[in-house]
Amino acid sequence: MEFPFDTIAAAELDRLQTLHAPLTRAIRELIDAAVHTDADEATVREAHTAIEAAAGALGRSRRNGSRTLRQAETGLPVAWGNPVVGTRNPIAPPVLIEHENGHCWSEFDLGGAYEGPPGLVHGGICALILDHVLGEVVSEGLNKPYFTGTLTCRYLRGTPLGRLRVEADVERTEGVKAFARGTLSDADGVTVEAEGVFIMPAWARENR
Amino acid sequence: MEFPFDTIAAAELDRLQTLHAPLTRAIRELIDAAVHTDADEATVREAHTAIEAAAGALGRSRRNGSRTLRQAETGLPVAWGNPVVGTRNPIAPPVLIEHENGHCWSEFDLGGAYEGPPGLVHGGICALILDHVLGEVVSEGLNKPYFTGTLTCRYLRGTPLGRLRVEADVERTEGVKAFARGTLSDADGVTVEAEGVFIMPAWARENR
Repeated sequence: MEFPFDTIAAAELDRLQTLHAPLTRAIRELIDAAVHTDADEATVREAHTAIEAAAGALGRSRRNGSRTLRQAETGLPVAWGNPVVGTRNPIAPPVLIEHENGHCWSEFDLGGAYEGPPGLVHGGICALILDHVLGEVVSEGLNKPYFTGTLTCRYLRGTPLGRLRVEADVERTEGVKAFARGTLSDADGVTVEAEGVFIMPAWARENR
Repeated sequence: MEFPFDTIAAAELDRLQTLHAPLTRAIRELIDAAVHTDADEATVREAHTAIEAAAGALGRSRRNGSRTLRQAETGLPVAWGNPVVGTRNPIAPPVLIEHENGHCWSEFDLGGAYEGPPGLVHGGICALILDHVLGEVVSEGLNKPYFTGTLTCRYLRGTPLGRLRVEADVERTEGVKAFARGTLSDADGVTVEAEGVFIMPAWARENR
């Protein structure tokens, strides 16, 4: 069974991206403010009331969450709800990925909402981002269906919050398996190395 | 260098938890609504304005983000900003962890904001949660300083969104290294297996 999908025209996608980008950014700022605030009780309660009202208003018109979206003209996936790259998911930093000939990379910022030890990125957040970017490179931008089979991350040192770079390469493919490697780095070099084995699901194999 | 920390009395911690719990829950609902909404332009713009105001009000009083917090009476860490377990971090599901004799576990829910393939949890989110829970079990609830050295996740099948269980055990310790294993499961059994090697940093070794 292939995943069900809806399509969206490029012009409508542009309109919705433009509409939702400021909302998503504001929610990311809200998350960061909520984690770090020392505001008094009245301020917290007022914020709570306003946010509950906004969530209620947005929640009244809800898409069916179990269908993926593709661009009508190109067939390319629209991953705007994805927790790593989703431009409409406030949980996503987002990591905006560039692709070129079996290589991909991104530069992005992580703030205090992704913190584990003080001043450092949570080790699991490093794994989340590396899993995604390795999956992106083997699937040529989520274009081919691949699921993570095995992910291994080696942590060389703590990854500081702030500006980071992630890179990944396809190492080789063997039948229905694809092998990828990647790194997470700060300005001083690599902090985490990852390798992953990705597997094409049975339903996708006949279309190879 | 040990991490700097502030202390907070149990009564004050209780007051702040009670104050912030509804705010954090409302922001989690807002994230879910924003990812899935089909609301019209006026509704999205109104929500944006309200959220920007709330983020501004909360952001005006900001804690120093680079210090950890410990309970004054017990010395136990207060990880409320953590992206996996933090009761004050809207990014965290949160995973609330039970500990017993070198074993720990949690049951928790993941909604559409954590989705990768349709209906399934993003593989990297599984890695994020397993990394955290393996780190919790070796550190006896973040009580001993341990950093992830290596994390390996084996994905047996897709993990459905909804109710999940995570478990972890300490396998053994060898000098400054601790070895842990864990699983993520749905009602039908294990979906992801993980093993991790965790390392005590040099500054913590003399206090062992």
